[in-house]
Amino acid sequence: MNITHIEHLGIAVKSIEACLPYYENVLGLKCYNIEVVEDQKVRTAFFKVGQTKIELLEPTGEDSTIARFIEKKGEGIHHIAFAVPSVPDALNEAESKGIQLIDKAPRGGAEGLSIAFLHPKSTCGVLTELCM
Amino acid sequence: MNITHIEHLGIAVKSIEACLPYYENVLGLKCYNIEVVEDQKVRTAFFKVGQTKIELLEPTGEDSTIARFIEKKGEGIHHIAFAVPSVPDALNEAESKGIQLIDKAPRGGAEGLSIAFLHPKSTCGVLTELCM
Repeated sequence: MNITHIEHLGIAVKSIEACLPYYENVLGLKCYNIEVVEDQKVRTAFFKVGQTKIELLEPTGEDSTIARFIEKKGEGIHHIAFAVPSVPDALNEAESKGIQLIDKAPRGGAEGLSIAFLHPKSTCGVLTELCM
Repeated sequence: MNITHIEHLGIAVKSIEACLPYYENVLGLKCYNIEVVEDQKVRTAFFKVGQTKIELLEPTGEDSTIARFIEKKGEGIHHIAFAVPSVPDALNEAESKGIQLIDKAPRGGAEGLSIAFLHPKSTCGVLTELCM
């Protein structure tokens, strides 16, 4: 798999507004976009750090996977997303090597990306996204 | 705080050997170093992805903080480390802005880095390292 860089890190938070002062005033990062991703039931806030984006993920309802993650594990890093040249090719390669896929084909994510997730059971516990 | 990039991500795993096939053969990353950090009671394996390193953290004993993390939350992303030009300056700035510090002064980390941690209670749940 020809990963070029970490495209983003998804961080589960209860409230974007409660976390903005830390990210902006302490870390000195600038939130450049806030966007709702309806089908994932999250509101996302974006910051850029070098090559990588930080995406804060706030649940928009109690049935959001992010709400369930926070309930189970607390706020924290939810997933890592690797940039690849082709998500379908990367999925095929992963599946051929025995990795359990959450998404058999790419779907639309925040910021117009094409995304697909690998199951953490196959990735040493880290929910892993491939995107382009 | 003048963060330039994400220096590394620390990922807690039960066994480095069990995870190497996924990182090397599926993701296509190359482990370039394995090192024991005695005072943190961890064995670490390093991979480079663009600007950022992935550090797998394997506990060397049951009293390792990584062992306790895995027991509580399962394997997964343990901390994020931001590269800063000066760790002492960044710590002073963080403390002056009300952030709870784990390390009041930098100490030695893996790969000869100077490191210090901020407490996740002050950072929206993410154990955060500053390093240079």
